[in-house]
Amino acid sequence: MIKVSIVGSTGYVGIELMRLLHQHPEVEILDLISKSSAGEKLIDIFPQFRGSKLEKYNLIAIEDFEPENSDLIFTALPHGVSQDITTELVGRGAKIIDMSGDFRYHDLEIYEKWYGVKHRHPEIARKAVYGLVELNREKIKKAELIANPGCYVTASLLGLLPIVKTGMADLSSIIIDAKSGVSGAGRSLKSSLLFTETHNTLKAYSPAVHRHSSEIEYILNKYLSGRYNSKSAENKKMKSNNLNNLNNTAEILFTPHLVPVKRGILSTMYINLNGKSSQEEMNELYRSFYENENFVQILENELPEIKNVAGSNYTQIACKYDDRTDRLIVISALDNMLKGASGQAVQNMNLLFGFPEDMGLKSTALFP
Amino acid sequence: MIKVSIVGSTGYVGIELMRLLHQHPEVEILDLISKSSAGEKLIDIFPQFRGSKLEKYNLIAIEDFEPENSDLIFTALPHGVSQDITTELVGRGAKIIDMSGDFRYHDLEIYEKWYGVKHRHPEIARKAVYGLVELNREKIKKAELIANPGCYVTASLLGLLPIVKTGMADLSSIIIDAKSGVSGAGRSLKSSLLFTETHNTLKAYSPAVHRHSSEIEYILNKYLSGRYNSKSAENKKMKSNNLNNLNNTAEILFTPHLVPVKRGILSTMYINLNGKSSQEEMNELYRSFYENENFVQILENELPEIKNVAGSNYTQIACKYDDRTDRLIVISALDNMLKGASGQAVQNMNLLFGFPEDMGLKSTALFP
Amino acid sequence: MIKVSIVGSTGYVGIELMRLLHQHPEVEILDLISKSSAGEKLIDIFPQFRGSKLEKYNLIAIEDFEPENSDLIFTALPHGVSQDITTELVGRGAKIIDMSGDFRYHDLEIYEKWYGVKHRHPEIARKAVYGLVELNREKIKKAELIANPGCYVTASLLGLLPIVKTGMADLSSIIIDAKSGVSGAGRSLKSSLLFTETHNTLKAYSPAVHRHSSEIEYILNKYLSGRYNSKSAENKKMKSNNLNNLNNTAEILFTPHLVPVKRGILSTMYINLNGKSSQEEMNELYRSFYENENFVQILENELPEIKNVAGSNYTQIACKYDDRTDRLIVISALDNMLKGASGQAVQNMNLLFGFPEDMGLKSTALFP
Amino acid sequence: MIKVSIVGSTGYVGIELMRLLHQHPEVEILDLISKSSAGEKLIDIFPQFRGSKLEKYNLIAIEDFEPENSDLIFTALPHGVSQDITTELVGRGAKIIDMSGDFRYHDLEIYEKWYGVKHRHPEIARKAVYGLVELNREKIKKAELIANPGCYVTASLLGLLPIVKTGMADLSSIIIDAKSGVSGAGRSLKSSLLFTETHNTLKAYSPAVHRHSSEIEYILNKYLSGRYNSKSAENKKMKSNNLNNLNNTAEILFTPHLVPVKRGILSTMYINLNGKSSQEEMNELYRSFYENENFVQILENELPEIKNVAGSNYTQIACKYDDRTDRLIVISALDNMLKGASGQAVQNMNLLFGFPEDMGLKSTALFP
Repeated sequence: MIKVSIVGSTGYVGIELMRLLHQHPEVEILDLISKSSAGEKLIDIFPQFRGSKLEKYNLIAIEDFEPENSDLIFTALPHGVSQDITTELVGRGAKIIDMSGDFRYHDLEIYEKWYGVKHRHPEIARKAVYGLVELNREKIKKAELIANPGCYVTASLLGLLPIVKTGMADLSSIIIDAKSGVSGAGRSLKSSLLFTETHNTLKAYSPAVHRHSSEIEYILNKYLSGRYNSKSAENKKMKSNNLNNLNNTAEILFTPHLVPVKRGILSTMYINLNGKSSQEEMNELYRSFYENENFVQILENELPEIKNVAGSNYTQIACKYDDRTDRLIVISALDNMLKGASGQAVQNMNLLFGFPEDMGLKSTALFP
Repeated sequence: MIKVSIVGSTGYVGIELMRLLHQHPEVEILDLISKSSAGEKLIDIFPQFRGSKLEKYNLIAIEDFEPENSDLIFTALPHGVSQDITTELVGRGAKIIDMSGDFRYHDLEIYEKWYGVKHRHPEIARKAVYGLVELNREKIKKAELIANPGCYVTASLLGLLPIVKTGMADLSSIIIDAKSGVSGAGRSLKSSLLFTETHNTLKAYSPAVHRHSSEIEYILNKYLSGRYNSKSAENKKMKSNNLNNLNNTAEILFTPHLVPVKRGILSTMYINLNGKSSQEEMNELYRSFYENENFVQILENELPEIKNVAGSNYTQIACKYDDRTDRLIVISALDNMLKGASGQAVQNMNLLFGFPEDMGLKSTALFP
Repeated sequence: MIKVSIVGSTGYVGIELMRLLHQHPEVEILDLISKSSAGEKLIDIFPQFRGSKLEKYNLIAIEDFEPENSDLIFTALPHGVSQDITTELVGRGAKIIDMSGDFRYHDLEIYEKWYGVKHRHPEIARKAVYGLVELNREKIKKAELIANPGCYVTASLLGLLPIVKTGMADLSSIIIDAKSGVSGAGRSLKSSLLFTETHNTLKAYSPAVHRHSSEIEYILNKYLSGRYNSKSAENKKMKSNNLNNLNNTAEILFTPHLVPVKRGILSTMYINLNGKSSQEEMNELYRSFYENENFVQILENELPEIKNVAGSNYTQIACKYDDRTDRLIVISALDNMLKGASGQAVQNMNLLFGFPEDMGLKSTALFP
Repeated sequence: MIKVSIVGSTGYVGIELMRLLHQHPEVEILDLISKSSAGEKLIDIFPQFRGSKLEKYNLIAIEDFEPENSDLIFTALPHGVSQDITTELVGRGAKIIDMSGDFRYHDLEIYEKWYGVKHRHPEIARKAVYGLVELNREKIKKAELIANPGCYVTASLLGLLPIVKTGMADLSSIIIDAKSGVSGAGRSLKSSLLFTETHNTLKAYSPAVHRHSSEIEYILNKYLSGRYNSKSAENKKMKSNNLNNLNNTAEILFTPHLVPVKRGILSTMYINLNGKSSQEEMNELYRSFYENENFVQILENELPEIKNVAGSNYTQIACKYDDRTDRLIVISALDNMLKGASGQAVQNMNLLFGFPEDMGLKSTALFP
């Protein structure tokens, strides 16, 4: 039983953490910190927690929070804000899982360029361990500070990892067309997020220049250069790597879209192959890459769909080889609140504390 | 650990039963029976169950089903179809929870009038126990065959029970304006249920003549005549009953509406009071009536909303006393797939087998 | 050809006015006034007007607006704000149609009680003509200032007018359960109006105490006391009035609900009848009441649905007599942006200037 | 004033044709033919047409239809079904606009391969004129039989035409990731189109192998080989063509997605450029290409969004040059029922009969 606190409890990521953690058999929730709602009773803001263990909790201010009493702190704060608060919490006894983008880059020029913010704590950033479990499981187990990946990034990387090191992919050709539910935009008051502006419509935004482009490309290139060693990545059945290719760096083009669903990301990825392949070869590649993974499922007779993963921590992936154009289409679906944020964070927590990796994460999709 | 089978696994109610039961700590799922999909692998139809305990299951035909091996069978079949199949299963060793309307009435003329179907098994119908837990808990524990209540009915009865026996309500004045998500209409292929016909619109249907009118009125009048004895119903703090009133029978007017949400029912009820009351008195009445209930929550500072219960087995209820018109407005919200169907069925199962009533039902609403 | 200006062009009501007016054959749009967007090009904010007559317009500040050049001004401003600005515009040459609640009441105590705002211009308020065409057509034609009705109010009054003066209705029994699309809440930045908070859910709000209660009741009682004389209201086929009843005043109970649709209101109304009636009698009553009305349609073989009116200025109404409980259920549907706001305003404009009443308003619902 | 009939009136395309045509100032609707609803009154099936000119119409069977009395017939029938019925109508006096895929190909092997259907009337197919106005305006004016383009195809071609002949595009690199509203799938009873299956979710379907792939590629290559001569295509400001490139053929990869909106298509296209360009050059290219077009709008400071075109016949397009990867991203949005089907058909009708091209098509998007 570990003691866990959440800083930033009233955003969507914080709500989802509370929902998952209060039912986790090895977790006792200690403090729920909120700037905007300090002093309020939790169930007065979130009536969905009536009747649960959370019924008695009040939200507290960060000033009243004593991090030393927690074994683990989740920081669920906006980018730019998190770096200072998280830095203050580091080294005060608790492990930390940060949900923001602030600690996902060791090369801070990239962060600073794409986020348009100065990083004020480079030494902390460089100690952070990137929390994409399927890529980085062993380092996560020993981390002090975990940088939980972004939702678009998780959906995209899980779809790309199996192919990029095989030598079969033209690494300069990767195009990611991603579609996200509106909860991914958070709870901030923007007129573009009003129901009347977002319902029954669809749009692209930030084509080619969205921040998550940089995170996908950065992590992909770290992976290509051998900086991660998860079991999946070492998979024995993988085709021997093409050395020339390993020298290459991936360059991705990423266009996100806002779709009128509450939760879920569907990422459609296009990769030119260097030569002929087959549907069977691609299925085998993907299946074997993830054969030991709990939360990544390769579909062969159907295609991923948000409704089959929303409410669960699973990612579903299908690949389609097009022999007409020698391209691979990879489609991945996940729940941006779960595998794309809070579910992945709980998966990281389970690794950190030696619990079974799927503890508290066994729910299947809520359908219908 | 009990062995449980589901007859009619591929409708929405069946899917939801599978979702709940495969994670229930005291349940082993034995057979999944389906007419339309017998012989198919479950995850080929419902990819959301990949990675779960259900991954290996195949659907089987009713002809291949041996009911003697199950401790409990859920029958999730259409009205009119269920009565024959369920009757065949009764007395073959397993307890049965029937999800249809076929066994909810002991007075079969009412059933036959409103359902337009002959009841071919009156002796079985009369042995069935009505499965609204908050009304009938003690009898449920000893039942052989439980008739699980309808979704509209559960939402409405839970809102009406506290007031109807107090003598304060004009029992002829009850109006129920209910709004249901589309999953309540099931999975049948009707053009009126197509996305393009149902999205971004709203309609009433069957005003005053919907079948569930009869179930609400029938159960309410049985309750008024003292035929149920749950703890809630015996609540000590209840106002002493007005004897004249007890002789009365309730007459309700019920109008359902179809709203473009996937799951959830919101029921708005209007009751004329016989005299002056106050918001405080009404709150106290409702709060005390359900004070020992796990799954019914009385809100006092906010109003029920589908998003706060969808994905959970909770019903949230608020009452609003209008002193201008001396009326009581009661608003209840529940998830039609959970407390309105499969969740309530699992609650019944827990009672039947002596498990904690909320076992496997502790999830809070999936929000956002 | 008349010159028309809009004060408050960038709210939803203003946008809808622009959409209708730029295609009206007798209208030239003169000035578009906006506080928040003065100086901006219209199509930079509303790209949907590219390619239309509105393409070249810029929004201007109220300070730069010369009302003398317009024949008609629409004021589409928030309640409380409109009264001052509209008052300043009165008497400067242009006729005015005000979309707010500020001029809908001659009895200002009612306004002040329900809106919680002082009315600073009682003399102007008392000169305003209530713009429900079907009730007040003759006075509208000669008005200087028209108070355009609220959306909930229009949907409800059109459903109630045929029955209330017949002597058949118990005027103290009227219950209105109304459901509105989210555009009815306007474009203001409230977290409760975010997509993620409003999609796939449903709630009631302000039961019994919503402002529009007072407007419905106020206008209904003015109508009962003979203060309006539209053709519809004088309909010859109407049952002779019960004198006792005419002395009565109506008391209504109104509960609005927010449903996840963009536009549209469905109002379900319940009225106790004083004696037996029949479906035929009710149909005949409603049909004859509106037989000369362009924009009110009585359905007899189907029920109103938002999708059949959204995008049009029509109201569809069905009545259902329930002989079990001697109640009348009336269901009305309209588009809150059209007949519930801007369409009705254009209808008023047509009357004011002697254009055919349906000019510019002939679109049928946009379905699918 | 021309006399127009519709064969296949009760599908979504037929409904939309009726909606547009009954308000067209030069059209008299003659016969409405329907197989499933022959003999029924139109407003009993589509209550939205009450109060309009269509109020009195009955649907008739094809057997009772005399094509000689019409000046123009729209055939709105399923692929494979249309070819026989349309062929019978050809040469009987009326011009024909066919909404199906049956007459869009002169090279029938392509049709037969992708549609999996034998073409039984090759001589008729070869006479048909492809009805993408912006590509083929002059031939359309003199056609006897017009093959109205598909919705995905219109959205994609309008986005691709400006760039493909410039020599700047790598014609083998074109990737189209398209997202369609559900009305595009028609009104057929498939469980995958039920509200509960389609709401709040998202999926890709038929990646790389959707029929519309072949239509996009086929028309694009005909255009590249100089077979169309619309004004747009001859645009003087166009970069001189790269001759090598003209010998090339385009090969496209097309992946459609189903999104939970009622109407609208958003198509996101990715093209590798052969060298460096700039945002300004691309904007200028697109703007000049369509400078004489009524219904195609190039956005430079914002991105296309379905809500800004749904309900209108406009297509909005933006292009984004990414200098990091030397790719062009083109995003187009249109209403699949209007510019993607019935609106484009009316545009074709206007050309055929010499009416102003935008007659009856001036509505701007219905927003909110």
